[in-house]
Amino acid sequence: MSNKKIPESTVSRLFLYLREIVVLCGMNIRTISSAELGERVNLSDVQVRKDLGHVGQFGTSGAGYDTEELKTALEKILGKNKVWNVAVVGAGHLGSALLTYPGFKTHNLNMVAAFDSEDKKIGKKISNVTIQNISEILKNIKDKKVTIGVVAVPAESAQGVADKLVSSGVECILNFAPASISVPENVKIKNVDLSRELETLSYFLANKR
Amino acid sequence: MSNKKIPESTVSRLFLYLREIVVLCGMNIRTISSAELGERVNLSDVQVRKDLGHVGQFGTSGAGYDTEELKTALEKILGKNKVWNVAVVGAGHLGSALLTYPGFKTHNLNMVAAFDSEDKKIGKKISNVTIQNISEILKNIKDKKVTIGVVAVPAESAQGVADKLVSSGVECILNFAPASISVPENVKIKNVDLSRELETLSYFLANKR
Repeated sequence: MSNKKIPESTVSRLFLYLREIVVLCGMNIRTISSAELGERVNLSDVQVRKDLGHVGQFGTSGAGYDTEELKTALEKILGKNKVWNVAVVGAGHLGSALLTYPGFKTHNLNMVAAFDSEDKKIGKKISNVTIQNISEILKNIKDKKVTIGVVAVPAESAQGVADKLVSSGVECILNFAPASISVPENVKIKNVDLSRELETLSYFLANKR
Repeated sequence: MSNKKIPESTVSRLFLYLREIVVLCGMNIRTISSAELGERVNLSDVQVRKDLGHVGQFGTSGAGYDTEELKTALEKILGKNKVWNVAVVGAGHLGSALLTYPGFKTHNLNMVAAFDSEDKKIGKKISNVTIQNISEILKNIKDKKVTIGVVAVPAESAQGVADKLVSSGVECILNFAPASISVPENVKIKNVDLSRELETLSYFLANKR
């Protein structure tokens, strides 16, 4: 078992399993089979066993997974037992929306810094975070032990901001800008396309009538 | 084959397959096996066959899927061959970010209306859409043939806004408010948690060192 190379889509499914397992533990359900767990999240038992194979060896054949044991192992491998500091670059509509968005805290994500290049925004507070000049990135990210940087700037500024974040020591970048960004191999980049959320709705509209 | 009851998570995977198939068609690759397609999107061949079973009967055993045929069938079932009109309620940080977000158009989603309850916002334009008073929802949504309503208001106003959208005839609601919303059975609701995007990053941080 190596946890160094779990692909991103598998990681997303591990979070999905964890959410279900937390519910099951709350209901005092002690064991669950791969087929039952798969049914709850709409995946085949084969897929569930393959995915959980990345996490470790659980249960004995036929008895199903021990839910408490699985919960602990998933939380550990997914880093849910730690708190991570986040900085947002770009305090426009999207950056401000992210800074004020509830729910990050429940995911152990701490918004600790925000940066913008527009003079009139510097010094303003959004959700207790003071917007600083983008030239302060290097010093602040080190001082505040930020590991996740969020890029919420226009496409043309995205690469420059990412470069600054990388040289400040950020280990993960979440990119909301509609631009592809290059980062060194040891930095994790995740591109977010908000329109994907809307996309799946077209299926329901097309099949309603 | 019934396409009336495909679960939401399967629909998301169908969009994933479609994106891959579009790439394959662009490369002039005529057929692909379930195992190869699965490998490209990190899912088992069993899962791929199960998911595509919802779409129809394709290819013959051993020959793999005909990519062009699969593309056409997926586009049709997913409603990608049509354009849908979208209205955003709440022109705060998040609503404004959605109105200015590029990428909706490429997904055949047309932002045609925006509403807010704050007097000072009414009449302003964001990305060519004029913000209107929330009291105008009913008339506007019918006139502009809106089928998707986006709720981007604070939690305490979310249910009231959803009720207004439903009585105006909206068929799908995308809810960004951190509140659970009740809608009639014939209306599709999708809750979006932006913090989920950040959540998966904790895995990479936990397993880096």
